[in-house]
Amino acid sequence: MSAAHAWRASLLGAGLRRCWPWTPAPGSRPAVARRTLGASRRGLSTTSDIPTKTLPRIARRVAATSGDPGADSEADHQFTLSWPGATPKTVLVVKKADDEKTAAALVSIASWLHQAYPQISIVLEPSVHQQFHASLPFVRTVPPEASDEYSRVVDFVVTLGGDGTFLHVSSLFRKQVPPIVPFSMGTLGFLLPFNVADFQAQLRRVIEGSATLLPRMRLVYSKHREDGSLDRCGHLNITNEACIHRGTYPHLTTISCYLNDHLLTTSVGDGIIVGTPTGSTAYSLSAGGPIVHPLVSSMIVAPVCPRSLSFRPLMLPSSATVKLQVHKESRGRATAYIDGRDCGELLQGECIEIKRSPYPLMCVNRDDLAAGWALDINQLLQFNRTFSYPHESPFSDHDPHAGSRDGQ
Amino acid sequence: MSAAHAWRASLLGAGLRRCWPWTPAPGSRPAVARRTLGASRRGLSTTSDIPTKTLPRIARRVAATSGDPGADSEADHQFTLSWPGATPKTVLVVKKADDEKTAAALVSIASWLHQAYPQISIVLEPSVHQQFHASLPFVRTVPPEASDEYSRVVDFVVTLGGDGTFLHVSSLFRKQVPPIVPFSMGTLGFLLPFNVADFQAQLRRVIEGSATLLPRMRLVYSKHREDGSLDRCGHLNITNEACIHRGTYPHLTTISCYLNDHLLTTSVGDGIIVGTPTGSTAYSLSAGGPIVHPLVSSMIVAPVCPRSLSFRPLMLPSSATVKLQVHKESRGRATAYIDGRDCGELLQGECIEIKRSPYPLMCVNRDDLAAGWALDINQLLQFNRTFSYPHESPFSDHDPHAGSRDGQ
Amino acid sequence: MSAAHAWRASLLGAGLRRCWPWTPAPGSRPAVARRTLGASRRGLSTTSDIPTKTLPRIARRVAATSGDPGADSEADHQFTLSWPGATPKTVLVVKKADDEKTAAALVSIASWLHQAYPQISIVLEPSVHQQFHASLPFVRTVPPEASDEYSRVVDFVVTLGGDGTFLHVSSLFRKQVPPIVPFSMGTLGFLLPFNVADFQAQLRRVIEGSATLLPRMRLVYSKHREDGSLDRCGHLNITNEACIHRGTYPHLTTISCYLNDHLLTTSVGDGIIVGTPTGSTAYSLSAGGPIVHPLVSSMIVAPVCPRSLSFRPLMLPSSATVKLQVHKESRGRATAYIDGRDCGELLQGECIEIKRSPYPLMCVNRDDLAAGWALDINQLLQFNRTFSYPHESPFSDHDPHAGSRDGQ
Amino acid sequence: MSAAHAWRASLLGAGLRRCWPWTPAPGSRPAVARRTLGASRRGLSTTSDIPTKTLPRIARRVAATSGDPGADSEADHQFTLSWPGATPKTVLVVKKADDEKTAAALVSIASWLHQAYPQISIVLEPSVHQQFHASLPFVRTVPPEASDEYSRVVDFVVTLGGDGTFLHVSSLFRKQVPPIVPFSMGTLGFLLPFNVADFQAQLRRVIEGSATLLPRMRLVYSKHREDGSLDRCGHLNITNEACIHRGTYPHLTTISCYLNDHLLTTSVGDGIIVGTPTGSTAYSLSAGGPIVHPLVSSMIVAPVCPRSLSFRPLMLPSSATVKLQVHKESRGRATAYIDGRDCGELLQGECIEIKRSPYPLMCVNRDDLAAGWALDINQLLQFNRTFSYPHESPFSDHDPHAGSRDGQ
Repeated sequence: MSAAHAWRASLLGAGLRRCWPWTPAPGSRPAVARRTLGASRRGLSTTSDIPTKTLPRIARRVAATSGDPGADSEADHQFTLSWPGATPKTVLVVKKADDEKTAAALVSIASWLHQAYPQISIVLEPSVHQQFHASLPFVRTVPPEASDEYSRVVDFVVTLGGDGTFLHVSSLFRKQVPPIVPFSMGTLGFLLPFNVADFQAQLRRVIEGSATLLPRMRLVYSKHREDGSLDRCGHLNITNEACIHRGTYPHLTTISCYLNDHLLTTSVGDGIIVGTPTGSTAYSLSAGGPIVHPLVSSMIVAPVCPRSLSFRPLMLPSSATVKLQVHKESRGRATAYIDGRDCGELLQGECIEIKRSPYPLMCVNRDDLAAGWALDINQLLQFNRTFSYPHESPFSDHDPHAGSRDGQ
Repeated sequence: MSAAHAWRASLLGAGLRRCWPWTPAPGSRPAVARRTLGASRRGLSTTSDIPTKTLPRIARRVAATSGDPGADSEADHQFTLSWPGATPKTVLVVKKADDEKTAAALVSIASWLHQAYPQISIVLEPSVHQQFHASLPFVRTVPPEASDEYSRVVDFVVTLGGDGTFLHVSSLFRKQVPPIVPFSMGTLGFLLPFNVADFQAQLRRVIEGSATLLPRMRLVYSKHREDGSLDRCGHLNITNEACIHRGTYPHLTTISCYLNDHLLTTSVGDGIIVGTPTGSTAYSLSAGGPIVHPLVSSMIVAPVCPRSLSFRPLMLPSSATVKLQVHKESRGRATAYIDGRDCGELLQGECIEIKRSPYPLMCVNRDDLAAGWALDINQLLQFNRTFSYPHESPFSDHDPHAGSRDGQ
Repeated sequence: MSAAHAWRASLLGAGLRRCWPWTPAPGSRPAVARRTLGASRRGLSTTSDIPTKTLPRIARRVAATSGDPGADSEADHQFTLSWPGATPKTVLVVKKADDEKTAAALVSIASWLHQAYPQISIVLEPSVHQQFHASLPFVRTVPPEASDEYSRVVDFVVTLGGDGTFLHVSSLFRKQVPPIVPFSMGTLGFLLPFNVADFQAQLRRVIEGSATLLPRMRLVYSKHREDGSLDRCGHLNITNEACIHRGTYPHLTTISCYLNDHLLTTSVGDGIIVGTPTGSTAYSLSAGGPIVHPLVSSMIVAPVCPRSLSFRPLMLPSSATVKLQVHKESRGRATAYIDGRDCGELLQGECIEIKRSPYPLMCVNRDDLAAGWALDINQLLQFNRTFSYPHESPFSDHDPHAGSRDGQ
Repeated sequence: MSAAHAWRASLLGAGLRRCWPWTPAPGSRPAVARRTLGASRRGLSTTSDIPTKTLPRIARRVAATSGDPGADSEADHQFTLSWPGATPKTVLVVKKADDEKTAAALVSIASWLHQAYPQISIVLEPSVHQQFHASLPFVRTVPPEASDEYSRVVDFVVTLGGDGTFLHVSSLFRKQVPPIVPFSMGTLGFLLPFNVADFQAQLRRVIEGSATLLPRMRLVYSKHREDGSLDRCGHLNITNEACIHRGTYPHLTTISCYLNDHLLTTSVGDGIIVGTPTGSTAYSLSAGGPIVHPLVSSMIVAPVCPRSLSFRPLMLPSSATVKLQVHKESRGRATAYIDGRDCGELLQGECIEIKRSPYPLMCVNRDDLAAGWALDINQLLQFNRTFSYPHESPFSDHDPHAGSRDGQ
C-alpha cells in the first residue's frame, strides 16, 4: 500500500469515515501520521531552514482596454509568471504513488534541478522522501505535523503522474496554491499540457520567469446539518465537481437546488452535479453538460438521470452560492461526492453549499491556450466526429441524389 | 447535365415544382422524356420480348416457435431469397450518373453476367443504355413510356453508387420492389453492404438462391389541402424520412402532430421529422433521435430545434398513421421534404399523412446482419467513442486518485 | 412490517441476498413462509377445490390484411379478451401493502363481485387474506407452498395500488400471466388506465367478454459467471428494465455490450440500461432514451452517464439477445438491477443476458390506446411543454420584430 | 404597414437586401427615410435644443473583496444606476408598431411623465411621433438624418412591447446604449421584468436613482469575403445569437469554426449558432444548448442538427474571437442570421467573425436578479417539470415495490 493510501486508511480508522480530508484542519492529523513523524524526524532533511518563498509576479498577459461599465474583459485572460528581482527558492515535486515511470522521472528531474539550479531546494512528500532520500540525498521533506510549511516555502509545484496527482496538490494547500507545472508521463491531457520528456525546457521557463499561467477556478464545499450547523469536515476544495447522488439507495433522491437562497428547482432523480469549467470534461460531461473553456468564470449545474424531460444543464455566474439540500421528505438519503470521492451521507434536510474559492489553481500552461484546448477537445474527447459514410466526402463536387444525409 | 438531371429539370419546367415525382403517376411523364423516347426506340433493344419475371421464394430465415398471443417474433427476422425450380430471367442494373468508377463497374458486371449467365437479360435505365449499348450490345432498356415494364420483368436490381443510387430504385417501383443488391464503390455503409470488388460471389449467391434479404420498411406520404383533398402529387414512398421544416421562413412553424387522429402534441420550432428505422441514421440522428436497428418495426418522430425542453423523440408502432398539420394560426408556412427533397410548401391548415407502406425494400444483405450493423454504427457513425485521457487505459490496474473521471 | 416485506426479509435471511426472487423457483420457498403456511392452513379457504381456469379467447382486434413478405402488421395491434361459451371462474385481487385506500377498495370490489358474480371465486395473497378473511369470509387464498395454483386457477387479476403493485403481479406467474385489470387509486398512469371508482363497469366488461387487451412485452434476465454457468437465481422477468450500474463503486465500470454474440460496444461510465417499451418511461427516460409506444416490439439500450459524447440510445429488435458483461479488466465491479431492485453484484468477467420473454403481460386497457397514450405522455411526462413567453402566443397575427425565438 | 416595416421595405428596395441594418452606418440611410425627413421637419418638435444628457453613475452593487490574482469576482455582479447631483433630462420611449395596447400605454406613460417630471423631455421615434404628437403635443422626435442625436441626448429608454421591441433599441445605438427600462404588456419574461401597470413606481426608481442594472453582453458581427475584406454591412450588434444555416439548400453545409484563429472543428449539418447568455434561452436552447445566467461572461457555440453524435455545445470565454467559415469545398452555400434575421448569403470561403461588444445593454431589472431568473426559467421555460405519476408523491413515506421510477 502506498503511503498516501496508508494515510487515507488511517483516517478511516480514526473514525473520519464520512469526510475525506481534502484540506485537513491542522488539529485533525491522524495518529499514524504522527507515528511516521517520529521516524521521519530522525536524520530527516526538512524545510525548517528554508527561507520563506519568493513572491512571484503574476500579471495578466493581456491588458484590459475597455473602460466601459460591464466590460469584464479583465476576467478572461491568461497570466504570466515571473520572479521580479529574484528566483524561486523551493520546488515541491509530487508524484503518483507506486509507479515506476514517475519514479524514474522524479530521479531525472531532481538530479537535473540540483545540478542546474543548486540554490533551489527540492521538497518531496514524506513517503516519497523516505523512498528517495538515500539516492537523492539533497531532497528535503515537510513532516506531516508541519504541513503549513508548504504554504510558507513552496515557490512552485511539479506534478508527475495523471489528473489524480494534479488534483492531489489541491489538498496540500488550504488557501493559496503555488503555481503548478503538471507533467504527463505519456499522452497529454486537459490538465497535463507538458510531456515529461520536455521537463528541462519547461522548468527553465518557469524558473527564469517566462511561463504562462492558466487560472483554474476552484469551488469551496461545506456540508450542513438540518439545523444549519457546519459539518466537522469544514470547508473542502473542489477542482472538478461536487455531486449529490443516491448511490445504491433504490429510491430516487429528491434534492432542492437553491441559487443565492432562492429555490431554483427541486429535482427527483439519481443526483445533481455542481461543477467547475475544469470539471466540465469530467462527470458533468457524462451527465450531458456542455464543454466549458477553463477561462469561463461559471459554475455548471447538471442533473444525473433526472425524472424529468426538461432539466437542461444550467450555467450560473461564479459569484453564485449554490445549495443542494436533500428534501426533508425525500424517500431516499444520498451521498455527497467531491471530485469522485465519497464525502459522507446526507440525511433528509441536510445540505451542501458550494461557492467559488478565492484561490484558483494557477497552472503553468502552453502559451497558446486556445490552440491547446482545441487540440484537447478533439483528441481527448473525440469532439464532433463527423460520420464517415461511403462515397461521402463532404467536399465531393458531385450532386447527391439524396441518401443518408447527403451520401450518394 | 446527366439524363437524370435533365429529367428532373424538365419536371420543374413542366410546372411540377412542388412535388418531386418519387413515384410518378403514369400520366405525369414529362415531355422531354417522351422526346427521348422517340430517339431511344429506334434500334433499341427493349424488354418487350422478355417474359414475365420468375416468382422468387422469400422465406423467413428463422421459424417462429412461440404460439403465444402477443408473441410477434415472426416480425423480427431476416428472409432468404430463392428461385424454386427456376432461375431469375432479368436483372436491372442502376448506376450513379456521371461517374467513371460506376461506369467501369457497370461494364465489368454486365460483361461477366452476360458470359456467366447468358440466359439473364440485363436492363439499364434509358440514359445509361444510351451511353453503353454500343460497347455492351446485349443490354436492353425500358422506354420511359413503358416504365411499368420494370415491375413485370425485373427479377432483381443491382445498384452501383452510393446511398442516393440505392434510394433512386425506390422511385422506379410504385408498389412491390424486386430484391436489390447494392454495391459500394469503396467504403461500405448501412445501405451498401457489399464492395463491388466482390460482385461475382455476391451475384452468384443471388442467382443461385442462397442470398439473405433484409426488409427495410418504407413509409407512404400524402399531402392534403385544408379541406382534406389529396394533393396532386398523390402518394410517395419514403425510405429515410418525411420532414416539415420552416425552411427560410423567419417565423417558427407551429405544427400539430396527430397519432391515429388523436392530437399528440403541437410543436413550435423549426420542424418535425417522421422517419423509418433506415432513416434513423440520417436526418433524425442529427435531430437527436435514437439509432434504430432496421428490423425494428417502428416510426420515429423527432423534433427539429423545438421551442421546448421536453420534446423527447418518440417511437410509434409501424401500424400508426401520423399526421403533421401546419397549424391554422401558425405564423409561418412550412415546406415538406421527403428524403431530403423539397416536396412543396404547406399553407396553414394543410397537412401530410404518413403510414407504413406494405412494400418494403427487400435488400440483399450480409448473412450476419447483427455483426454488420454493429460494425456500421461503430465505423460509420463513430458510435460511443470513449474519451482517451492520458494514463487512462480503462483497464489499468493502478488505483486512481481521482481525476477527470478516473484518470490519474 | 408488511407481510410482503417480511417475506422479502426472510429471503434475505435465507442467504438469497444477491437475487430478488422475481419468479422464485418452487424449491426456493423460504422457511418463514412455510411456518406461516402451517398457521394459514388451519381454517383457510384455499383454492384447492377451484376447478381449472376457463380458457380465454385472446384475439387480435384488427385483422392483418397484407400478404406481403416483410409486412408484419400483425405485430402491431391490440387484442380483445373473451370467454367463448363460458365465464371466468376465479379472480386474483392484489393490493398495495399497508395502505388504507386500497384496503377500502378491496372490500368494495370483493363485496360487489361476490354479489354480482357469486360463481366467481375471489383469491387474495396470503397476507392480505389473513387481514380480510374475517370481514370477507368468501375470499380464498393460495398457500405459499402451492403458488403454482395461481397459474392453474386464476382467470384474471385485479390490481389495486400503483405501478409497483402492477409489477408485483409479474412475479407471481413464472410463465403465462392471466389478463390484468389495473386500477389506480387516484391519478391515472401509463400502467394504470382505470380509476377504481369505475370498477363495476370495467369488471363487467372483463367478465362479460368485451375488454381490450394491450400486450406489454417482458424481457427475461439471467446472470452468468465468468465460465458461462447460470447463476442460481435462474431466469427472472423484466417489466421495465435491467441495468448494470457501478452503484457506489468510485471507479467507472467498463461494460461490454453484445448483440447476438457480436460486440456492439464497450462502454465506460456509470452503467447501461436494457429496457422494454413499457420501461421507456422509467429509468431509460431519465438516462436520455426515447419514449417508446408499448406496441413497438423493441428493446432499448441506453447508457447511464457514459464517458463518451457519442453513446446515442439504441433500439434493437425484440428478437435480439443482448449480453452485458463487466469487462475482465474493468477497474470497478458493478451491480445488476431489475426494475429498480438489486439483483446482486457482478464481478469482472460476469455477465447478464437479456432476451424477450414469450410471456407478455396482457393488460386490460382503454379501448382507444392511441388516445390514452397521447394523454399519458402529455399529462404524466409533461411532454413537449412549449415555452410561455410574454406576448408570445404562437398564434398571434402580429409580425414579430425578432425576439427570443419569435416574441415581440 | 407600420413605419418600421416601411423603413425596412425601403432598405430592401434600395438594394440592401443582404444585410439588415441593425446599426446602420450614417451614410447608408435610405432614400425613403430622407423623404420622410422633409415632412417631419416641418413644425416638428425635435431634440436639437435639448442639452446633452446627464452622465449617470453606474456602480457595481457589490464591491469586490478579493485581491487574489485570478479572482474575477468583479465581473459577476449587478450595477446600480444613479444620477449624482443631477436628474435625467431626456427619455426615449419606444413602442411595438401597430399595437393598441402599447399605444394606450404610451399615452399613459407620456402624460404621467410630463406631469410628474415636466423637466424631462420625452422623445419618440419619428413614425410614433407622427402618430401621437397631436394628442401629446409635448413629445419630441429625432429626425432620421440626425439619429446620432439619440446618443447625445437620451438618458434612458423605455420600451413598451415584447422582446422584439427591446431588441430594436439595440439598433438605435451603435455604441453605448443608455439604460433601458423594459415594460411587458402582460406576462413577464427574461427581457421584460416589469409589468406596464407598475410603470409609475419603476420610472420613479430610475429617475430618482435607485434602480438596479443588469448588463447584458452583446456580440459584434462582421461578414468577410474570401479575400478577408469586410462586407459592406460593416459591424452589427448581436443580442441573442448569430447563426449560419443552410436555409433551404438541400445539401448540408460544411462550416469550419475557429477560436482565436485556431481551427476548433469542421461541422457538417444544418448550421452553427454563436450566442450570448441572453440568447441561451432563444434559438440556442432549441438546438440543445445550456441555460446560461445573464451574468456569466461567455459565448455559446451550439450546432444545428449536426451530422455527428458528438458535437456537444461549447462555452467559450467572452474574450474569444469566433470565426465561422463556409468551407471552400462545402456542397451547399449558407445564410447568415442575426437574432433571427436574414443577413445575407455566404458563398463558399466566406466567413463571419464574432466577438464581444464593449457595449452591453444596461437593463433596469428586478433588485433580486437571482429570484427573478429562477422564476423565469421555471415559469417561462417550464424548466425541470417533474413527472406526475399516480400515487407518486415523491414525499410519500411508503415503501415502493418498484414501479416506473419509484411509483407504487
